[in-house]
Amino acid sequence: MPDIIQARVLKGFRDYLPEAEIERKALLEILERKFRSFGFVPIDTPSLEYAEILLGKGGGETDKQVYRFRDHGDRDVALRFDLTVPFARFMAEHVDELYLPFRRYHMAKVWRGENTQRGRYREFMQCDFDIVGTDAASSDADIILLIDSALAALDIGSFTIRINHRGLFNRFLATIGASDKGPEVLRAVDKLDKVGTLEVERILRAEIGDEAAIKVLDYITPENGFASTLAKLERLSGGKNPDSDRLRAIWEEVCASSAANDETLESAGQKQEEKSSILVELPAKPGKLVLDPSITRGLDYYTGVVFETRLDEMTEIGSVCGGGRYNELASLYTTRKLPGVGAAIGLDRLLAALEVLGKTKGRAGYTEVLVLAIEESFGPRYQALASATRKAGLSCEVYPEKKKLGQQFAYAERKGIPLAYILGGSEAEKGIIVLKDLRNRESLEASSASAIAALAKERLGK
Amino acid sequence: MPDIIQARVLKGFRDYLPEAEIERKALLEILERKFRSFGFVPIDTPSLEYAEILLGKGGGETDKQVYRFRDHGDRDVALRFDLTVPFARFMAEHVDELYLPFRRYHMAKVWRGENTQRGRYREFMQCDFDIVGTDAASSDADIILLIDSALAALDIGSFTIRINHRGLFNRFLATIGASDKGPEVLRAVDKLDKVGTLEVERILRAEIGDEAAIKVLDYITPENGFASTLAKLERLSGGKNPDSDRLRAIWEEVCASSAANDETLESAGQKQEEKSSILVELPAKPGKLVLDPSITRGLDYYTGVVFETRLDEMTEIGSVCGGGRYNELASLYTTRKLPGVGAAIGLDRLLAALEVLGKTKGRAGYTEVLVLAIEESFGPRYQALASATRKAGLSCEVYPEKKKLGQQFAYAERKGIPLAYILGGSEAEKGIIVLKDLRNRESLEASSASAIAALAKERLGK
Repeated sequence: MPDIIQARVLKGFRDYLPEAEIERKALLEILERKFRSFGFVPIDTPSLEYAEILLGKGGGETDKQVYRFRDHGDRDVALRFDLTVPFARFMAEHVDELYLPFRRYHMAKVWRGENTQRGRYREFMQCDFDIVGTDAASSDADIILLIDSALAALDIGSFTIRINHRGLFNRFLATIGASDKGPEVLRAVDKLDKVGTLEVERILRAEIGDEAAIKVLDYITPENGFASTLAKLERLSGGKNPDSDRLRAIWEEVCASSAANDETLESAGQKQEEKSSILVELPAKPGKLVLDPSITRGLDYYTGVVFETRLDEMTEIGSVCGGGRYNELASLYTTRKLPGVGAAIGLDRLLAALEVLGKTKGRAGYTEVLVLAIEESFGPRYQALASATRKAGLSCEVYPEKKKLGQQFAYAERKGIPLAYILGGSEAEKGIIVLKDLRNRESLEASSASAIAALAKERLGK
Repeated sequence: MPDIIQARVLKGFRDYLPEAEIERKALLEILERKFRSFGFVPIDTPSLEYAEILLGKGGGETDKQVYRFRDHGDRDVALRFDLTVPFARFMAEHVDELYLPFRRYHMAKVWRGENTQRGRYREFMQCDFDIVGTDAASSDADIILLIDSALAALDIGSFTIRINHRGLFNRFLATIGASDKGPEVLRAVDKLDKVGTLEVERILRAEIGDEAAIKVLDYITPENGFASTLAKLERLSGGKNPDSDRLRAIWEEVCASSAANDETLESAGQKQEEKSSILVELPAKPGKLVLDPSITRGLDYYTGVVFETRLDEMTEIGSVCGGGRYNELASLYTTRKLPGVGAAIGLDRLLAALEVLGKTKGRAGYTEVLVLAIEESFGPRYQALASATRKAGLSCEVYPEKKKLGQQFAYAERKGIPLAYILGGSEAEKGIIVLKDLRNRESLEASSASAIAALAKERLGK
């Protein structure tokens, strides 16, 4: 006997067994349906690219985590570590073959040699969607409405999308004379969730002095409701300005979309008025939109609105979908201006949340009817039954060989198959096929393949 | 201005623009639906594995093409170059968590540093399906029926699945005293398509002598019809044996499945008799099953039936789906016996064939209704319209900002959007929304969001 190689996967990598893969595919299929319903189109880019393309600016924490090596042609290559950088390269390269505004989604794997002690995987799927080539409020609203629509479809309970505007915050910093301390203030505010208000206050006092610190803390504390918070931020940032106008426009579009349940466009307008002092209900009922001036989304990249999304029943897992507006997507690769807005869904977090909330489907397979193998010589008849059943639109498989019935039933149970056909010698003599409902042990019978398939279909409520 | 990095992809890699990606996704969705209808479940494995696991036996042509490098932990790792080796490792590792027979499909990317001059890509998608843990004829038949069902669903014209049996061929070689020349004979026969009968005859004469060469050429020449070819092979290989029985059993099961259009199981039996002297029609009408003793599928790995599939209108592109039965899937990683049967679909070839045959959908997007942006201040109304339209089950997007109508119509045309809503100042005054059918310029109108959405739906025949 030759030496056996120990079957194992690399640290930080994992196999998806059928139950897990079915769950993941179901999630992706729902998201994809929603992306398409908002007019987004799919693209794909290579997993492997020139390191220079992916790492552009060089340096930083990301670099160390990148899988980078020399290929057969001695090229310096790397596995993509996100979908944003390849998308920027893609747009720079193909903008003349495409059209603007360009709405794309991309669901694909990325690789990072991260520390696995933090429960992170080194290969995981990202799920990005962006609208590029326009700076319109309507696109900001679209991204928020799509997040709402997608999460609602996942049936994951109520959730809150928090939105803020980078530009408005900068205006505020200017009014308190702290413009030059922008990064430090953002970094401190970004820690609010982790370290609490008191610690943030301490850091801010040290960075910008007591008076300014108090003003910042006031600014980042929302009022009760979108409109009153917006009015406060507008006041603290020097009055009505394009950035506060942008937030108002987004809010109005989201409200109008919400109200579209109603019969007429006029009533949509009314509804919007009524709602002006409360939380904004998103169109898909369990979602809310909140103006939260403490949302920062890190320091770089975003230049306009930023947003993140938390599940109300599981705030501790952090944001399951975040994003924002950027001025220039592809400035590393082209002089062409490509403003845009986009978001990324955290698939692994969502899958984990679905599991904790008991919302997973726990599906072991797709088979709806198992044709039991009872008579050795009946193979052709079993195939005829399966074929007729598939023609009726059901998923059907033939147990491949005669085994003890207990073993075949155990197989059906393991795969979660609800129905079975029984056709043995005695049934053949009587000219019937028996349909067994494995969920309640009830039996039905019919005398032809198409008739038993019709019964099976009815049994499954199809 | 900073230096611009030239946007480009690595040689042998490619971007999928929306049209191409939509086409690929449509193909994958059809295949996936068919896999599921036959009871197959999806799995996934890591892209990156220990080189030792992937390259096991070492040496060979494949090794040179593998993307292999040292990771951050100085591990010797490689990108998978097929889905078979990872599946073998997967089964060895998880067989006790799973169940047998195990029917899985796996559609995922693999990487090979192949010579791109031959029009090959270095990153491509593979699509494998296998039934592991049984040596039953029923599973062989299942794989053939699934190929038939999947290709028929792609609407790619008529096709022919050619089947042969390795064991039967070996029996024949024994009867002519050429058992020790098996590999040489197989290698020569494998060249039949490329070099023609005369050249194969020349090679065979040189390898095994004139008399044996003539006998091989006779053996590999099919008769007219499955049954008569089988009878001939059986005679030439020393009479009825388990391998010819296996071919007969597969043939009977496929025939029975084909005949399942008919009302009763009895008539299925009759049909089968009638067909015994002609080509086997596969259940999905355009497909045929042919017993072709010249099919070899290379030298290694397969131990029982082998098969390949050609499109009748494009035989020159070679097999679009091939496979066979193997005795041991995972013998490198476990002492447990795991016999199985499986096939792989050549996605790139299928996509190329669809294109040549003019069978591609040429779809540029999913959007069914574009809400035109006419009045700057109507953003909320446009979102309300879009929301109502999505609620009606249509894909709808809002053009994000006021631009010349010509530009917006051009956008709709580029994305293949069939319908548009027009709601400008004059429509608002009249209290209507206009639905424009962009395919024939016809216009309809309604006075509420839900009413216009209903009209749009009707217009699309939904």
